[in-house]
Amino acid sequence: MKFSFRPSEGVFYELFTKAAHNLVRGTDLLLELALPGVNVQSVSERLVEVEHDSDEITHELYNKINSTFITPFDREDIYRLGSLLDDVMDHMEAAGSLIYLYGLTDLPSLPRELHEQVNVLDQCAKITAQAMPRLKSMKQLSDYWVEINRLENEGDRAYRMLLVRLFSGEYDALTVLKMKEVADELEAACDAFEHVANTVETIAVKES
Amino acid sequence: MKFSFRPSEGVFYELFTKAAHNLVRGTDLLLELALPGVNVQSVSERLVEVEHDSDEITHELYNKINSTFITPFDREDIYRLGSLLDDVMDHMEAAGSLIYLYGLTDLPSLPRELHEQVNVLDQCAKITAQAMPRLKSMKQLSDYWVEINRLENEGDRAYRMLLVRLFSGEYDALTVLKMKEVADELEAACDAFEHVANTVETIAVKES
Amino acid sequence: MKFSFRPSEGVFYELFTKAAHNLVRGTDLLLELALPGVNVQSVSERLVEVEHDSDEITHELYNKINSTFITPFDREDIYRLGSLLDDVMDHMEAAGSLIYLYGLTDLPSLPRELHEQVNVLDQCAKITAQAMPRLKSMKQLSDYWVEINRLENEGDRAYRMLLVRLFSGEYDALTVLKMKEVADELEAACDAFEHVANTVETIAVKES
Repeated sequence: MKFSFRPSEGVFYELFTKAAHNLVRGTDLLLELALPGVNVQSVSERLVEVEHDSDEITHELYNKINSTFITPFDREDIYRLGSLLDDVMDHMEAAGSLIYLYGLTDLPSLPRELHEQVNVLDQCAKITAQAMPRLKSMKQLSDYWVEINRLENEGDRAYRMLLVRLFSGEYDALTVLKMKEVADELEAACDAFEHVANTVETIAVKES
Repeated sequence: MKFSFRPSEGVFYELFTKAAHNLVRGTDLLLELALPGVNVQSVSERLVEVEHDSDEITHELYNKINSTFITPFDREDIYRLGSLLDDVMDHMEAAGSLIYLYGLTDLPSLPRELHEQVNVLDQCAKITAQAMPRLKSMKQLSDYWVEINRLENEGDRAYRMLLVRLFSGEYDALTVLKMKEVADELEAACDAFEHVANTVETIAVKES
Repeated sequence: MKFSFRPSEGVFYELFTKAAHNLVRGTDLLLELALPGVNVQSVSERLVEVEHDSDEITHELYNKINSTFITPFDREDIYRLGSLLDDVMDHMEAAGSLIYLYGLTDLPSLPRELHEQVNVLDQCAKITAQAMPRLKSMKQLSDYWVEINRLENEGDRAYRMLLVRLFSGEYDALTVLKMKEVADELEAACDAFEHVANTVETIAVKES
């Protein structure tokens, strides 16, 4: 393997930004699931493609870590940030696939709180994509992680109220279990966005 | 931001101790839920207040990390320990809120194993509060983490036997799901106490 | 405590290898559960014994970390690798115990996908046991982690299809909940194998 001895930091920020933009593609697809007459199978298949793209970006990042002599910050932190961005995508793809596999869109409509969870994820994806290029200057990053923490609280509330509705007797037990699996994946995606933000904060603390 | 150049280690031990004492306030409230004729809404609201206090202590700690030049041990470990103590509180607050939101106290009584989980958490909180000031001398900490590991096993056993009871047919499926959510949060709080102890152990290993 | 000043690296590789071989003993027992006329109580009890052996190996490793002056790689990574190998065992033991405690073997047969999960775990255990001695030379480790990632995807797929079957109406709600608990532990064991492989990869990245 060839090593580059001159720092080529730029490529790391580009890959993080690319990974985060891919998450916006993911939440766009999850938002489509709320549209009337949506083709759920097609959305689920496109989510799988976006997830594969995410895997490729992650592997490109890992290769770059291994072939670069001087990295812009600790290689372990680069590694971790890449892996966490990939986690978000895994949970979003899982949510979409389960909605399809469980045939949940045969229901008249999905609960409102589930759409709220997706809306929160969409906002998280957008501000994460905006924040990634700022890793270069390490400036204005605290706005980003404060906002992610606020959104994560909002997502928690939507998730909690969804469970209250699911357990209220409005649905039969098996439908409850199916929807809970989907909600759990969306909640895990939201948590993963928070872990991304926490890692950015840790990196910023070290650099300060 | 002003930097203090003289080590002010004391404040870190004080904040960890304060955070752990706040967890004792949390388990005191969870214990109240077992009392006959308890006002569940009031307990749940006070748990939210205690959780806010926990958030404030955590933020004070993070600010202190960022404004202190020399920290008593790795700033990442301080960061992690603070974040894990906060996790315990989050799970305890969630358990209390769900008991209220799901109307579980309308049942004649909560299962015995759920009270056992709370008792284990109460013991964990107390010995964690006693151990935090000992971070200064790094002495007698192994007693603490050995005891937490023992308690965590006890908590696991209570959780496992609770599930056996819940799945025995004594309750209807939706009540089972509600209680399982509460039990999961209590189990997560117990696991988080173990992560706190593991982090203390990691710090002690580094310093030894 | 006596400190050895001469590096005694060998013992660390031996303990990792021993821990991984113990996991093969664990999956052997889980495979027994698929045999006709199996004594489930006996399998469950032997799993508890294997889990105790795993705990002892982990403690021996921790003591070795604390009493050794020069370790072959970061003591935190040694610590983490040991702890993750132990996690795998904890989840496998939990799965076996729950199958026994919930009386799931009274059913005519367990779902095919659950056996597929166990088969994946068995392969993970075997290649992990083969990889551990290679930590010494740090050679041919990438084959191992690539294969674990492939197996983890296979395990995910089996888990996902198991849930589709469980939620299809083939079983009553309480049986679904019991089987899901078992499947969750097997899935957690599979994830833990991936965390072991990720840690090995992190160590290899640092050493490269």
